[in-house]
Amino acid sequence: MRLNEFTKHPKIVIIGGGFGGIQLAKTLKHLDGEVLLIDRHNYHTFQPLLYQVATGSIQAESISFPLRKIFHNQDNLTVIYANVKSIDSANNTIITSDGNVCYDYLVLATGSNTNFFGNQQIEHYTMPMKNVTEALNLRSLMLQNLEAAFLEEDPDKKQALLNFVIVGGGPTGVELSGSLAEFRNHVLAKDFPEHKKETMKVYLIEGKTELLAAMSEEASVHAKKNLTELGVEISNDVHVKSYDGELLTIDDGRTIRTKNVIWAAGVKGELPEGFSPGAVTKGNRVQVDTTNRVHGYENIFAIGDAAAMITLDTPQGHPGVAPVAMQQGKHLGENLIRIIKGEPTKPFVYNDKGSLATIGRNKAVADLGKIHLHGFIAWLIWIFVHLMSLVGFTNRLIVFLSWASSYLTYNGGNRLIIRRFNTKEMKLEVDSD
Amino acid sequence: MRLNEFTKHPKIVIIGGGFGGIQLAKTLKHLDGEVLLIDRHNYHTFQPLLYQVATGSIQAESISFPLRKIFHNQDNLTVIYANVKSIDSANNTIITSDGNVCYDYLVLATGSNTNFFGNQQIEHYTMPMKNVTEALNLRSLMLQNLEAAFLEEDPDKKQALLNFVIVGGGPTGVELSGSLAEFRNHVLAKDFPEHKKETMKVYLIEGKTELLAAMSEEASVHAKKNLTELGVEISNDVHVKSYDGELLTIDDGRTIRTKNVIWAAGVKGELPEGFSPGAVTKGNRVQVDTTNRVHGYENIFAIGDAAAMITLDTPQGHPGVAPVAMQQGKHLGENLIRIIKGEPTKPFVYNDKGSLATIGRNKAVADLGKIHLHGFIAWLIWIFVHLMSLVGFTNRLIVFLSWASSYLTYNGGNRLIIRRFNTKEMKLEVDSD
Repeated sequence: MRLNEFTKHPKIVIIGGGFGGIQLAKTLKHLDGEVLLIDRHNYHTFQPLLYQVATGSIQAESISFPLRKIFHNQDNLTVIYANVKSIDSANNTIITSDGNVCYDYLVLATGSNTNFFGNQQIEHYTMPMKNVTEALNLRSLMLQNLEAAFLEEDPDKKQALLNFVIVGGGPTGVELSGSLAEFRNHVLAKDFPEHKKETMKVYLIEGKTELLAAMSEEASVHAKKNLTELGVEISNDVHVKSYDGELLTIDDGRTIRTKNVIWAAGVKGELPEGFSPGAVTKGNRVQVDTTNRVHGYENIFAIGDAAAMITLDTPQGHPGVAPVAMQQGKHLGENLIRIIKGEPTKPFVYNDKGSLATIGRNKAVADLGKIHLHGFIAWLIWIFVHLMSLVGFTNRLIVFLSWASSYLTYNGGNRLIIRRFNTKEMKLEVDSD
Repeated sequence: MRLNEFTKHPKIVIIGGGFGGIQLAKTLKHLDGEVLLIDRHNYHTFQPLLYQVATGSIQAESISFPLRKIFHNQDNLTVIYANVKSIDSANNTIITSDGNVCYDYLVLATGSNTNFFGNQQIEHYTMPMKNVTEALNLRSLMLQNLEAAFLEEDPDKKQALLNFVIVGGGPTGVELSGSLAEFRNHVLAKDFPEHKKETMKVYLIEGKTELLAAMSEEASVHAKKNLTELGVEISNDVHVKSYDGELLTIDDGRTIRTKNVIWAAGVKGELPEGFSPGAVTKGNRVQVDTTNRVHGYENIFAIGDAAAMITLDTPQGHPGVAPVAMQQGKHLGENLIRIIKGEPTKPFVYNDKGSLATIGRNKAVADLGKIHLHGFIAWLIWIFVHLMSLVGFTNRLIVFLSWASSYLTYNGGNRLIIRRFNTKEMKLEVDSD
C-alpha cells in the first residue's frame, strides 16, 4: 500500500474535508512538509443547503465540490479517498479501509452525525439529513410517497403518505419545514392536480419551549410566527416517544399516522475508534484544550463539531456551526506552524459574527451581534452569505440561477427520483434504474 | 387501485416519456378524452448528453426534466409513475407494478435498451449507458478506479484500473471516448498529480470498418482522425470475444487487461411482455405499418426505437434517433385524432434533417443533407442544437454555464462519487453514504 510512501516530515494528517478540515489544509499551504487530507467522500459538502437538495430546489452537485479540485494548486497536499476506521495513537498510525497511514500530527475534523439517542427503531424508520446521500434519499422518499398517495385508495393510508413530520426545531428543522410548507403551498397542486393543498400536512415537533433555541428570542418568535403563517403545525415542549414506520407517538399522548418522519433532533461527534474513554465527553466529542489539542494526547488535535473546547467561557463547548470549524481550522493551522517552529501557541477565541436561518420566500431571521433582523432584509443577507460561501464560481452561478428561477416561477427545481428508495426496508434500492 | 378511475373516453395510454412519448402527448393536448402517460421514471431524459453526465462534465439533473412539470398545463393528461410489466391485449389492459390500466388506444414509446447479444458475462461486467442511473454508475466506477489506481502498488493491476475500453464506434462510443481522452489530456494530472497523462489509455473497439457507420464517409474519416489526435487507440473490424472483469479478449487475438469496459455496441427494443411473436421483429422491435400500428393489433401503436416501420424505402426500419421518435410521436398524435373522428389516416414520412456527433473541444462532425461539415463550425452547430433541445430554460442555462466553464478552464464539472459503486459485485452500493 503506497499510503506510507508519503515520508516527508513533518507529516500532518487531517481526517475530514468539511469546513474545518479545508480551512486548516489551506492554512498549511506553505508548510515545508506533507499534508494528507483523508475523506470518505471525494467532495466537500456545503451542509447549510442540504435541506434544499432534499426538497429538490437545488442540485446536489451544486453544493458539493471535489476535494482534489480545491487543492489543485497546493503542492504539499495529497487527497486520500478512504474510510478511517480507528486510531492507533501508540504507533502514530491511523487504520483506514485502504491501509495504514502514519502521522507526526493528526487532526480530527470529522464533524458530527445524527444522534438517535440510542433508539434503534427511530434510527431505522426516520430519515436523517446530514450529508448529500441522506438528503437525496429523503428527496426520493418524499417524492415516492407523494406518487404512492396519488394511487392510494385507502383514505387513512393516503393521509399517512401525505403527513410530513420534522422532529427538531433547530435551524435544520425550521428551514426544512418552511421549505416543505412552501412546496405544499406552491407546487403540490401543479404537480399532482388530484392532491389538494390542504391534504398535505407539515408538523414540526420540538422538545424545547421555543424554536431556534440557540438564537435570540426575536428570532425564535418570528420563526414560529412565519412558519405558522405558512401552515406548519408546531408543537413545542413535547418529545417523540416512538415511531414504528406507521405511527408516531408523542409524549403528550397524541399520535400521528405518517410515512415521512425526518429526524433533525440532535447530533453527536463522529469519532473513529481508539480514543481513550477519558478523552471523549458529552455528545461523543473529544475534549480539547484552547489550542484544540485532545486531552491526554501530545500530537492529536480536533476541530469543529467533533471537538468540545470546554472552558469557563464555553462550558458546553462551542456551537456546532461552520464558522467555529473554519476559525478553529485556520487557528490550528497557525498553531501547528508555531509548534513545528518551536514557538509558543496562542489560545483559540471564537469570533461570533452571528447566525441566520431562512424560513421561506422573503422570510428569514438574523442575529448579528446585538442587531436582530427578520423578514426580507434578513432573507437577502441569508442569500448573499450562502451564495458567497459556496465553493466554486460555477456552483455559485448555478445555485443563484436555481433560486432566481424558483423565486420567479414559484416552481423551481427538478424533483427527480434518481436514487429510488426502498420505502419498506428503508434503504437505497440496488436495482435502481 | 384508483388507476382505473380514469374513465373518460377515448382513453389513450402512452407507455414511456421519452422523445416520442412526450411529443405524442403534447399533440393530444386538445383531445376530448383521457391521456395517461406511464413511465418508470418521474422524469424525461435527454439521452444525447448522457455521456457528459458519465464523465462528470454536466449534472444529471440538467438533462432530466420532471414529467409532471412538462404537463402542468395539459388538463386531459395524467402522469403515472409505474413500471409496466405486460400487455393483455385481449382485455385492452396493461399490467403495471401499481395495478392494471385499461385503454382504448395503447401507444408503446418504450425506447430501446442495451443489447448484450445474450452474453451474460459481458452483461455482468461491462457498463451500459442508456439512462441517467447507468451514466451515474459509470461515473462512479471510473472515478473510484482512478482513486484505486492512485493507491495501487502492483503495476499490472494499476494499469488495468487506468485502461478504459469503449466497445462500439457509433455516436455514443465516439462521443464518450473523445470525452474520456479530453479528461485524460486536461484534467487527470491536475486531479491526480501522481498519474501521468500517458498512463491512462482509452481504447475504442468497433466491429465495422469505420466509425459512425450511419453517417457520411467524411464524418467517419474525420471522427477517426480527430479521435486519434486526441490519443484514442481505435481498432476497426474487430469484435470483443469475452470479458471476465479483468481480461478483455478481442477476436484478432489481442487481450487488454482492464477494469473499465463500457458497452455501447448495440441496442434492442424495450418491450413489455404479451406481444404475439409474429409482431416482434429484428432488434426486439415491434413491426408497425406506416401509421405506426403494430402488426396484428387494431388499437396498439408503437413509435421510436421500440418500433420497426419496415417498408420498401426503409427495409431496416428507421434509425434509432430522437428526431424519428419525435416526428412519429407528432404524426401518430394527428393520426389518432383522425381515427377518433373517423377520418382517413396519413402515412408517416421521415424528414431527415441530418445528424451530428461531437468528438471533443472545437471538434464535431455534421451531415446536413448533402452538406458535410467538420471541426469548429460543426461543433458550434452541435452545441446550439443540443442546448435548444433541452427541456426547461433553467436546464439550458445551467448546461450552457457548465460548458462555458469547462471550455474556459479546461476543467469544468464536479466529479463527485455520490452513488458509490461496488466494483467487485458490479452493482450499486446500498450503504452508500
